[in-house]
Amino acid sequence: MPSQKIAIIGCGAIGKVHVDAWSHEPRAHIACLVDLLPEKAQALLPLCPGAAVETDYRRMLADPSITAVSVCLPNHLHCPVTLDALRAGKHVLCEKPIALNLAEALSMQAEAARAGKILNIGVVNRWHASVNLIKDMIAKGELGEVYHVSLSFRAFRSIPGLGGWFTDKKRSGGGVLIDWGVHFIDLALYALGLPEPRTVSGVTHARLAKKMEDYKYLNMWAGPPDYKGTSDVEEYVSAMIRTSGPSIALEGAWAQNLDKGAMHLDFLGDKAGLRMEYRGAFTVYGTRDGHLYELTPKLAPKNDYHAEISGFVDSFLSGKKDRAHIDEVLVSQRILDGVYRSAAEGREIDLRGK
Amino acid sequence: MPSQKIAIIGCGAIGKVHVDAWSHEPRAHIACLVDLLPEKAQALLPLCPGAAVETDYRRMLADPSITAVSVCLPNHLHCPVTLDALRAGKHVLCEKPIALNLAEALSMQAEAARAGKILNIGVVNRWHASVNLIKDMIAKGELGEVYHVSLSFRAFRSIPGLGGWFTDKKRSGGGVLIDWGVHFIDLALYALGLPEPRTVSGVTHARLAKKMEDYKYLNMWAGPPDYKGTSDVEEYVSAMIRTSGPSIALEGAWAQNLDKGAMHLDFLGDKAGLRMEYRGAFTVYGTRDGHLYELTPKLAPKNDYHAEISGFVDSFLSGKKDRAHIDEVLVSQRILDGVYRSAAEGREIDLRGK
Amino acid sequence: MPSQKIAIIGCGAIGKVHVDAWSHEPRAHIACLVDLLPEKAQALLPLCPGAAVETDYRRMLADPSITAVSVCLPNHLHCPVTLDALRAGKHVLCEKPIALNLAEALSMQAEAARAGKILNIGVVNRWHASVNLIKDMIAKGELGEVYHVSLSFRAFRSIPGLGGWFTDKKRSGGGVLIDWGVHFIDLALYALGLPEPRTVSGVTHARLAKKMEDYKYLNMWAGPPDYKGTSDVEEYVSAMIRTSGPSIALEGAWAQNLDKGAMHLDFLGDKAGLRMEYRGAFTVYGTRDGHLYELTPKLAPKNDYHAEISGFVDSFLSGKKDRAHIDEVLVSQRILDGVYRSAAEGREIDLRGK
Amino acid sequence: MPSQKIAIIGCGAIGKVHVDAWSHEPRAHIACLVDLLPEKAQALLPLCPGAAVETDYRRMLADPSITAVSVCLPNHLHCPVTLDALRAGKHVLCEKPIALNLAEALSMQAEAARAGKILNIGVVNRWHASVNLIKDMIAKGELGEVYHVSLSFRAFRSIPGLGGWFTDKKRSGGGVLIDWGVHFIDLALYALGLPEPRTVSGVTHARLAKKMEDYKYLNMWAGPPDYKGTSDVEEYVSAMIRTSGPSIALEGAWAQNLDKGAMHLDFLGDKAGLRMEYRGAFTVYGTRDGHLYELTPKLAPKNDYHAEISGFVDSFLSGKKDRAHIDEVLVSQRILDGVYRSAAEGREIDLRGK
Repeated sequence: MPSQKIAIIGCGAIGKVHVDAWSHEPRAHIACLVDLLPEKAQALLPLCPGAAVETDYRRMLADPSITAVSVCLPNHLHCPVTLDALRAGKHVLCEKPIALNLAEALSMQAEAARAGKILNIGVVNRWHASVNLIKDMIAKGELGEVYHVSLSFRAFRSIPGLGGWFTDKKRSGGGVLIDWGVHFIDLALYALGLPEPRTVSGVTHARLAKKMEDYKYLNMWAGPPDYKGTSDVEEYVSAMIRTSGPSIALEGAWAQNLDKGAMHLDFLGDKAGLRMEYRGAFTVYGTRDGHLYELTPKLAPKNDYHAEISGFVDSFLSGKKDRAHIDEVLVSQRILDGVYRSAAEGREIDLRGK
Repeated sequence: MPSQKIAIIGCGAIGKVHVDAWSHEPRAHIACLVDLLPEKAQALLPLCPGAAVETDYRRMLADPSITAVSVCLPNHLHCPVTLDALRAGKHVLCEKPIALNLAEALSMQAEAARAGKILNIGVVNRWHASVNLIKDMIAKGELGEVYHVSLSFRAFRSIPGLGGWFTDKKRSGGGVLIDWGVHFIDLALYALGLPEPRTVSGVTHARLAKKMEDYKYLNMWAGPPDYKGTSDVEEYVSAMIRTSGPSIALEGAWAQNLDKGAMHLDFLGDKAGLRMEYRGAFTVYGTRDGHLYELTPKLAPKNDYHAEISGFVDSFLSGKKDRAHIDEVLVSQRILDGVYRSAAEGREIDLRGK
Repeated sequence: MPSQKIAIIGCGAIGKVHVDAWSHEPRAHIACLVDLLPEKAQALLPLCPGAAVETDYRRMLADPSITAVSVCLPNHLHCPVTLDALRAGKHVLCEKPIALNLAEALSMQAEAARAGKILNIGVVNRWHASVNLIKDMIAKGELGEVYHVSLSFRAFRSIPGLGGWFTDKKRSGGGVLIDWGVHFIDLALYALGLPEPRTVSGVTHARLAKKMEDYKYLNMWAGPPDYKGTSDVEEYVSAMIRTSGPSIALEGAWAQNLDKGAMHLDFLGDKAGLRMEYRGAFTVYGTRDGHLYELTPKLAPKNDYHAEISGFVDSFLSGKKDRAHIDEVLVSQRILDGVYRSAAEGREIDLRGK
Repeated sequence: MPSQKIAIIGCGAIGKVHVDAWSHEPRAHIACLVDLLPEKAQALLPLCPGAAVETDYRRMLADPSITAVSVCLPNHLHCPVTLDALRAGKHVLCEKPIALNLAEALSMQAEAARAGKILNIGVVNRWHASVNLIKDMIAKGELGEVYHVSLSFRAFRSIPGLGGWFTDKKRSGGGVLIDWGVHFIDLALYALGLPEPRTVSGVTHARLAKKMEDYKYLNMWAGPPDYKGTSDVEEYVSAMIRTSGPSIALEGAWAQNLDKGAMHLDFLGDKAGLRMEYRGAFTVYGTRDGHLYELTPKLAPKNDYHAEISGFVDSFLSGKKDRAHIDEVLVSQRILDGVYRSAAEGREIDLRGK
């Protein structure tokens, strides 16, 4: 079988991660790097020698030899670019979150179905070794019935690129919830076997960077602040979700006046429970031979993006939807939408039948 | 002024704490120890030599020389005994929680008003040095606007007296929420200046001790398990509360399959924030001279029960209601009721106008 | 067999612990409580009703019906009182440390041998469940060869009874090393199977309470400060010990300007290692099925003093020396002496052949 | 003034760090990259466009237009290459450790003096913001007299490039002590104002990777293992050092069967003390207004290598020796030598007058 030709749309930080991951995939190679700023595409050429550089993704889409694309753009471009790519007959791996909101996500799902193409989402945690070991343990009943999940993604100072697209709601759809929370919610739902959400109640707060100059920080990922830009997204979120399975509580902060980093997920079952450090190890607390114990497997780290890419290739070559397909991931977007709506309306939202 | 004569009703663990605290109060002395089991009262006599021992509290109430009583009984007796004491013309210091539910609490409040007697609640944290320093800082604006509070009271294995009154809903009103949560909620509301609750959404879980024999533990406060007793209260609670001030999230566990003890309260303000370890110290995170810092005052521990008793004596001698008066504390009971109702109905409860 | 008659010499804090422990021993009962201050002895009578109270221990020793004694006195009295008791034909359980120094300890050992009586030392950690499980694991080779042990007993503010006997070298023999270090060193040596010490190099520091009024603290065990007393013992110690088995490093502080409590013992083996929290649980780090893991058994707490007493009774009834006999414990005193000598002379001490 | 021409000798990981740092220095530019493997030099060209690539450093030294060199080679090459460079009239910035041993270091110091050239050592921590703030505080007496320093550099699994030059004593001079310990020792001595060492007693252990295949790990910096190479250096060290100032205790592990990472330095003074996390923040513990407190300044991270390079340029342009000059750093090498000698001989070494 000839090597599949691939294009990357968006050559920023996450685009670079995709380029690196594709370079480890033996069944495909990157034929085209797309970015409005050609120097950003060119900077990645050493990782995929021979690729074309393109500033207009539509021109790339017109090339019938390209099989699939990675969409690595700011959130507000996920939907329009993915729709264009699907309509051009490409399989698409679109970064998380799916889109700015549920309506967009549904339109993407519908287009993928219509076009008969694979649309995967960059839910990279679904490829993490700890996560899949936890999913197996839950499925086998080793935790008993999981009745509550607690998600914590609270950082002291981590607002990304203040004043850039991350903090501009029109382009991002939101702040810490849609950027970090989506990972935690999606990971939990996946490990639990996708329970159905029932109610969501949430609050969001945008305080520390309302006046951008007031925000003191130690360093900033995704670039230095642009004080002429916009900062109108939440940097704090707290929510409670009832599902057909466990209840889920979450608290998240891109920034808070509390330097107690907490990035972890607790799964509480009636036989055993566990805490997983995000992207890290987990410890199980249970009973064995009549006494309580805790046990921490230590798994060697691996690159989950490689597995994400490999799974995507498996999927579009075989035509089989897998764990990262939009059909499997949409439920996370429904919860995000519910939290934002609840926070805006100051009341709980019932998600049943929606 | 002659020394005030006091009676203790209930000579268990918390009764002993009250006896000790009263023994440090110069304006009063314990004249009578009441317990259905006279040996429990007698065991405390070395702490208050000369006190009478009584098995029927009504007989003690009939003594007009007794000015005030401490009610240190299981929760279901708070209301009837307090009502009897108020009707007998006694000032009452009733242990927390106020009662099994809001209806009982309201009847106690009404009776206190009718009788013209002081009814204080054992909200001992309102007398804690850290709490009052935090309250002052918030009032002075040192944290800016406090927009979110997060309460964590999660233990690995701490169900008290399994099968006894603590785990029997008829006698306790509930589990970890009414026993521990009431302290955390009340402390937070007090420090915040008593904001009004608006909505409450909560879940409760009673899993680990549903079958009492399945519950493994390392030690047990409030006595060994009684496997013939009842265990029907929640050992886990999670809730989200909107108020006229900050949002409040809470998670609590008498027991969970997760040995990450977390007993603390986070107050997040837009100028500074802090974490207080329950009954312990707190650390402030803020900005000073242009750089971020954290600062931990280290206050010498003191006995808050002595201050609680002293405040109660101040109050009934002066006739002035203070921070521990039921009028100031009732709001905590309204939230407890809201969480339990929300958990039972599987939906958010609106507390406004109630 | 009739119940053995026992006497307690010294009714302070540790004396009370012994009284409680003896009260759980079915083969013996406390016949006499000795203290220079009779009110201290009387205060313990509720724990051993019917015991005689005596202010002169020699009068008690003259009673031939007394079989054995617990010596619970300040350190400088361990040696003379133990010698008197042995000469009076009593078995002796003497609290730790054995004595002020090695010379005294050797005289006690010699007298016990001459008198044909059991002389046990209060090495209570030798009866701790975690310690004995660790000792078994080491003996079975589950850690491989243990090549290094690191002992940490560092507290922020814990100088006991400043100005009392604890901080007066004439009466205590030293500070944190002889008071806390002896527990850590003895525990380690016991778990390791009593390797022979070879060299010792150590430093001691007496700084924070040199001027007693300069010492700020949050609370103080063993009583409030006596500013007219003496404070001339080390509150910090650091040492390195070579043995016939592993090397041992230790750092200890009764007080330091660093509030990072660290009370633990690390045993490093070439197959696995472990950290034990002092008087608590331990976690093993090793390899299993080809991957690294950590495992923490959670053992229910028990009262080690009961086991210490029971072992002492076993020993003097059977005439068999056990783990707590001075012959087994003397090596710890040799190390204490070596550290103090090394600190005084500013150079390493060779303990071989001594 | 024309831009100074610089050469980098050694283009591995640390060489890349130097190239990056030089690229931020306005008064100089990299004219030549030297590596035996030309592809390693070429890979760094994007960071210093226009530089020559050279495989033989002697050829580069022959170019009189080159003013100064960075020596970024394995430890056994520090001495011979630095001597050659000095003899060729270049100023030298040599990476740490100075050399394999003290004898080599002394020969380098002598040659620098003879040649009249600056020889700085890559003691990058001497340029760290926290370290210099600590040094200032100590100099001003804010800690009082610092009487003890405790250094901890213990990792679970961090042996670098097992089987490569790091673990081959002939090429590295040793393991964790010379690689990590040198940083901790040097940082402490610098902050303390360079006290004179008096005695050193130490032990080293090489256990976990004695048989390289037995060493399980999660990841490995400095490359994958080479099972055909040599592994004969210590992965554990413990030592105690007496100086003209404080005593210093240290424990270090490249690897240990204990997953309790501890990378920090404790400075204990009689007025205040502090713990600094290596390359991170520090917390001061002291007394203020009569109560104890702890305070953590939060300094923005900066790149200390830039300051190291800038200081080196200042030094060779002005001819003034600064904090990184070998004369200031040699004392660290004396201690390393002492620890290794003490470990080999199983006894304390007296360093006075040496």
